[in-house]
Amino acid sequence: MQQLNCALSDGLWDLLQRRSKDANEPVSQIVSSALAAHFGVVHHTLHQVSTSTALVEGIYQGAVRVGTLRAYGDLGLGTFENLDGEMAIVDGHVYQVRSDGSVREVGDDVLSPFAAVTRFDPDARVNLEHCPDFESLLKAFDRLRASENMFYALRVDGFFDTMHTRVMCKTGEGVPLVQAAAVQPEFNFRNVSGTLVGFWTPEYAKTLNVPGYHLHFLSEGRTQGGHVLGFSGSGLHLQLQRAADIHIALPETEDFLKGNLRRDPSADLAKAETAKK
Amino acid sequence: MQQLNCALSDGLWDLLQRRSKDANEPVSQIVSSALAAHFGVVHHTLHQVSTSTALVEGIYQGAVRVGTLRAYGDLGLGTFENLDGEMAIVDGHVYQVRSDGSVREVGDDVLSPFAAVTRFDPDARVNLEHCPDFESLLKAFDRLRASENMFYALRVDGFFDTMHTRVMCKTGEGVPLVQAAAVQPEFNFRNVSGTLVGFWTPEYAKTLNVPGYHLHFLSEGRTQGGHVLGFSGSGLHLQLQRAADIHIALPETEDFLKGNLRRDPSADLAKAETAKK
Repeated sequence: MQQLNCALSDGLWDLLQRRSKDANEPVSQIVSSALAAHFGVVHHTLHQVSTSTALVEGIYQGAVRVGTLRAYGDLGLGTFENLDGEMAIVDGHVYQVRSDGSVREVGDDVLSPFAAVTRFDPDARVNLEHCPDFESLLKAFDRLRASENMFYALRVDGFFDTMHTRVMCKTGEGVPLVQAAAVQPEFNFRNVSGTLVGFWTPEYAKTLNVPGYHLHFLSEGRTQGGHVLGFSGSGLHLQLQRAADIHIALPETEDFLKGNLRRDPSADLAKAETAKK
Repeated sequence: MQQLNCALSDGLWDLLQRRSKDANEPVSQIVSSALAAHFGVVHHTLHQVSTSTALVEGIYQGAVRVGTLRAYGDLGLGTFENLDGEMAIVDGHVYQVRSDGSVREVGDDVLSPFAAVTRFDPDARVNLEHCPDFESLLKAFDRLRASENMFYALRVDGFFDTMHTRVMCKTGEGVPLVQAAAVQPEFNFRNVSGTLVGFWTPEYAKTLNVPGYHLHFLSEGRTQGGHVLGFSGSGLHLQLQRAADIHIALPETEDFLKGNLRRDPSADLAKAETAKK
């Protein structure tokens, strides 16, 4: 055991003492629970900002700072204010892949309207020597998943003979996602090592996040990336973490508060997020 | 400012030091953020266990202890293992209203399959001198709400000339909610003071919680209660708290992991949760 010694505001101090008394729980236990939850240690919390429904309806105003996302976790994905590219969070670094194909690491003050992040601590792993297509990867992840009803965080590292991505173009607030996605540039990379990060979301949560698998790519050299549409690869290392604890921060922005979010976003999401047939 | 001094495990200590270094954030700031989130001080977090979809599908296994719910907040509602009555959380006390009409305060070790709770800190209030029916109350809450897209916690205190409630009967695991609700006893109370507690859930979250308004009643004497179907009252004090921060703990029980949760629960919820026409 270690001894924590630090300053606390009078308000928090009072709450802490009162809680300790009311719940008959030692102060050290309350502080430990709070810190464990904060670090996602106990629950592997999946933190999400805004909802897929809001994104589909064109609610692209910045709702969270990248710095806050980094405090929530080290693996994730999302987008940036006004759909300005794809976000990939790898090893605690937040990257922006723009529609011109450029990749840059972004600072803590950059804003995002939609993102999901977790402190990645995988509980299942498998290696895939040959992976001819996206579908084969998803089948391998299917075998690692124990349930259709949990959220899962995913990471894949390896070599990709081909990698097909798309990147959202910066657009105006209120432009529906389907319309914005109609002009998205696509990229085809060859013989590149890199990482896929993302999530599996259960069907019942389709108004919250993209249902099924959703992965973003970032090359090892941090120069190529995007929303994954397809690939072939080899020597892939798959990791999966179950997330039973979900934290959703709803944006208190004017556009979110006033938006019409009653529509089922599934059809639009499928159209915007998968490869054109 | 106060000086916090308490024991911490080596693991948490290491995480705290590492986070402080990585994020260039003082230890006291991290501990304060964690405690503030833990107490729901900053965000007014709405904590929810399981989902309305799971409840509709007959997933009634206990997933959380009442003690945990009490740590999350002081106002809320839910049900008990195997639908054994209605839960009302008022002023940090957790009450069980059973199908025989009895009410008792339950201990921390009792289990719940579904509940929602928050540390109630209202940000809007209004008094309703005369309230002829349920609909009038909901219209008054409509006027207090600023958005259709946020969650809201609600509390009403006052005098009820009439109060019409129903209480779920204990049933078997796997019996669909609609079927279980078909035999629910109803109660009609007269001239009783008491409290309504509950939530407003946006339409897009209908697979997570009962959409729209959902209120449970508890009499002042803690002897009458149930899921509210209708009432008339006077001298009502309405309080409302916006919740932009949602925390969902998914049960890691076998029935939840293996259940089929793909169905839209709306029709069944409406049938089970509202008065018979």
